[in-house]
Amino acid sequence: MSDKAAPLAEHALLLSPDDDVAVALRDLPPGLRLRHGTVSMTVTAAIPQGHKLAVRALPAGSAVHKYGQVIGLTSSDVRPGDHVHGHNLAMGTVEQTYEFGTARVQLPVAPLTRTFEGFVRAGGAAATRNYVGIVTSVNCSASTARMIADQFRGPIMDAYPNVDGVVALTHDSGCGMVPTSEGGQLLRRTLRGYAAHPNVGALLVVGLGCEMLAVESLLDDLPAPADTLVERLVIQEQGGVRATVRAGITAVRNLIEQLDQRTRSTVPASKLILGLNCGGSDGYSGITANPALGHASDLLVAQGATTVLAETPEVFGAEHLLTRRAVSEEVGKRLLDRIDWWQRYVQAGGGTLDNNPSPGNKAGGLTTILEKSLGAVAKGGTAELTAVYEYAERVTASGFTFMDTPGYDPVSVTGLVAGGATIVCFTTGRGSVLGTKPVPTIKIATNTPMYERMRDDMDLDAGGIATGDATVEGIGERILDEILAVASGRVTASEDLDLGRDEFVPWQIGAVT
Amino acid sequence: MSDKAAPLAEHALLLSPDDDVAVALRDLPPGLRLRHGTVSMTVTAAIPQGHKLAVRALPAGSAVHKYGQVIGLTSSDVRPGDHVHGHNLAMGTVEQTYEFGTARVQLPVAPLTRTFEGFVRAGGAAATRNYVGIVTSVNCSASTARMIADQFRGPIMDAYPNVDGVVALTHDSGCGMVPTSEGGQLLRRTLRGYAAHPNVGALLVVGLGCEMLAVESLLDDLPAPADTLVERLVIQEQGGVRATVRAGITAVRNLIEQLDQRTRSTVPASKLILGLNCGGSDGYSGITANPALGHASDLLVAQGATTVLAETPEVFGAEHLLTRRAVSEEVGKRLLDRIDWWQRYVQAGGGTLDNNPSPGNKAGGLTTILEKSLGAVAKGGTAELTAVYEYAERVTASGFTFMDTPGYDPVSVTGLVAGGATIVCFTTGRGSVLGTKPVPTIKIATNTPMYERMRDDMDLDAGGIATGDATVEGIGERILDEILAVASGRVTASEDLDLGRDEFVPWQIGAVT
Ligand SMILES: [Ca+2]
Ligand SMILES: [Ca+2]
Ligand SMILES: [Ca+2]
Ligand SMILES: [Ca+2]
Ligand SMILES: [Ca+2]
Repeated sequence: MSDKAAPLAEHALLLSPDDDVAVALRDLPPGLRLRHGTVSMTVTAAIPQGHKLAVRALPAGSAVHKYGQVIGLTSSDVRPGDHVHGHNLAMGTVEQTYEFGTARVQLPVAPLTRTFEGFVRAGGAAATRNYVGIVTSVNCSASTARMIADQFRGPIMDAYPNVDGVVALTHDSGCGMVPTSEGGQLLRRTLRGYAAHPNVGALLVVGLGCEMLAVESLLDDLPAPADTLVERLVIQEQGGVRATVRAGITAVRNLIEQLDQRTRSTVPASKLILGLNCGGSDGYSGITANPALGHASDLLVAQGATTVLAETPEVFGAEHLLTRRAVSEEVGKRLLDRIDWWQRYVQAGGGTLDNNPSPGNKAGGLTTILEKSLGAVAKGGTAELTAVYEYAERVTASGFTFMDTPGYDPVSVTGLVAGGATIVCFTTGRGSVLGTKPVPTIKIATNTPMYERMRDDMDLDAGGIATGDATVEGIGERILDEILAVASGRVTASEDLDLGRDEFVPWQIGAVT
Repeated sequence: MSDKAAPLAEHALLLSPDDDVAVALRDLPPGLRLRHGTVSMTVTAAIPQGHKLAVRALPAGSAVHKYGQVIGLTSSDVRPGDHVHGHNLAMGTVEQTYEFGTARVQLPVAPLTRTFEGFVRAGGAAATRNYVGIVTSVNCSASTARMIADQFRGPIMDAYPNVDGVVALTHDSGCGMVPTSEGGQLLRRTLRGYAAHPNVGALLVVGLGCEMLAVESLLDDLPAPADTLVERLVIQEQGGVRATVRAGITAVRNLIEQLDQRTRSTVPASKLILGLNCGGSDGYSGITANPALGHASDLLVAQGATTVLAETPEVFGAEHLLTRRAVSEEVGKRLLDRIDWWQRYVQAGGGTLDNNPSPGNKAGGLTTILEKSLGAVAKGGTAELTAVYEYAERVTASGFTFMDTPGYDPVSVTGLVAGGATIVCFTTGRGSVLGTKPVPTIKIATNTPMYERMRDDMDLDAGGIATGDATVEGIGERILDEILAVASGRVTASEDLDLGRDEFVPWQIGAVT
């Protein structure tokens, strides 16, 4: 151990400049001397990697800041260099009051210079891909839809360089439910969201004929761009699977020839709608990839674009921080309404919406529910919250927004894409292999060993933040560059692997009868 | 109109010899003279096709029999030749009392001579097909599983004449839920049911690595035949999708070479487990295909085999008739417990388990809830009820049994196959295109026009019963012959079309978080 005090940044990560605690980047031994600005400190007891180190004196009862946010109160006097965890940090009896718009951050004004190469659709939306989408009204038409799409994979598509593919969007539902029920409406909204998506240049809807969700109910007054080409097929009318596949192949061949006439042109970054998501999280998620993605979200919002946070159960416990960022009480209250819905929903099934740190989380250094949820919310940066959407609801606002979805990856991302997200960024610690046709998903590793191990499946590595080789801001800027390149056509890892059909999973709620 | 009385059977169908009403096979005009045994009658008012005609005098308050069962009480005096419907037939105030075992039918003793050619598995189960099953623990491994299976389609399989195929059993779930919850247990039971199925000669389990339902939890103490070959792959351990697909292809190539050594041999029909199901029903379902399938079920039970009725919400209202057929009070009460479960489940979601005839049903001639449910229960014949199973629970009893499932086709049949059904018979009026790998499904049309229109998708036509060209018993015997031929390897319509992957849909209950 050196006698000289080392800079704090070599051993621990301060997530926000004024934080009271830093995150140990490796196991810190007692006696280690560190300096942070004018403060010198000595580590007083062993601090495991990922755990918190006090960087200033915090008398008992002090608010403790991490991510620039209060994560709890000290329950005893804390000295600089002390390990901060359950033994000296608690949620306290602080009432969680909901304030609206009291923490709105004015992002630094940026020159609106960033652009990408998109497909400009009638009405002005900018697509990032140019797909034929085969939407199914019911599980009974899933196999037929796939058989049609399977004819348009591989070398045959080389003749259509401006078409990204033909994707069968199949699902398990569409009958055995009441169409006017909450679950029936949710499914219809999700399917119509994909049908109207700008990345779906041409649409083929395939149904069986006796299902609950009739093909026409998916197309009535569909808010798709006026230049979306639309075809429909009903198996019982066509005379079975074989006849429908034959008719579908003819229809799609005709559609891709027309779609291939469309080309990319330069559009401002403000046209992007970015979905923010995470899955297979680990101890690094909240300190590397998530804050870096939050920075990219802020940069994109400063360009006039839209970003959409989601995964309500993972935000639970930190929702009061989002309401403070809300542009209005109405927007903040919409979020609280959804949290109420979730509490009722989960309780009706005999469960609880418990986001408290698990024993594994605690061993990893997370002390309070707030601290845990902050790690998830970090993906949303600091911009003000301009709108709150229900699952699969069409996203129309600019700026940083929120959509109510489960945390479960394929269901959450399906909601975001149904809402109109044209690109998704997905952070992962354990290693997700998600793809999300017809929209590209950029997968960001939270740690370098996983990035190296799953090189084929990852697009970016944020692990350097934890080793001191990169900064949150630096990785955030790289994420923005990647977003614009991928929006312009650069192939992601999951696209290269041809993933993203089976990951279309509409949220199912309510009884299946 | 002829002056001579025509035989009743030329114009109407008596579903059980002692019934009080017959079903009009076509629109019957007033004045039409009919004779039935010693009774002569004149149609008193127009009776639409599918509606009921009284074949004897029924004073007000008489019990009215159809399918050999009481479907309600006359609310006024009824003469032979009268139209019987809502104007003179009601459920009355008869209390629906639950009796156990009071209507057990001793089937005629049949010589146990029927056999099929099956794959005899270690432990004695007889498979009807010889598949490699790729079971997925979570949606995250679905695409990977499909990529592996896709390498074993088409001409490459000609080299393995004794192997029926490689099927990827993918699903939408496996994470975002609590493993010990009712929904978590249901999913685990379903996946393990397929993994242990006799038609799965070899098993490859593919997982991601951080999911709720770990690969090992699908294999622990799996009650599969001892000669089931087992391999497992975890994407995060392999280093991603590409590496896993590569390893999976090698593993499956090795498995099919071993499976191809297995051959069929003659086994008694008693080894069969037949799933009974229906979907896309119409006005003919309850009078043609369903009773004919019920007769086939009785014939198979007389051979010592097992048949399994399902679709609890469609049986609702006629459950007291099933309890009377139960071999014990315990078996009958198990059914009533499941009905109670459904009532609580559907009410918790704000719905009702309402099986009353819809306006469309009433226009088609169905008067009471009992009459409607009897049409569904008719698939179960008359044999005594030997056991009641929960969804995807392993079926071990011989004779006629019941499994609690939703009515929704893919979910219901997935439960039956998970429980061990080795063959399925599926009746359909509108035209279903269901397939159910790794188990063959025989699709039976309720009417000839649909059978002709969807010739590629149908296996048998029961429509002749409604035109007087065939009898329930005759079609029932043809169904039994087809069951034994298909169990021996005859290719069904859905197998010829290569259907049955997307129709694997485990029942989802509980919150997705
Ligand atoms: Ca799907
Ligand atoms: Ca997630
Ligand atoms: Ca073969
Ligand atoms: Ca499926
Ligand atoms: Ca059904």
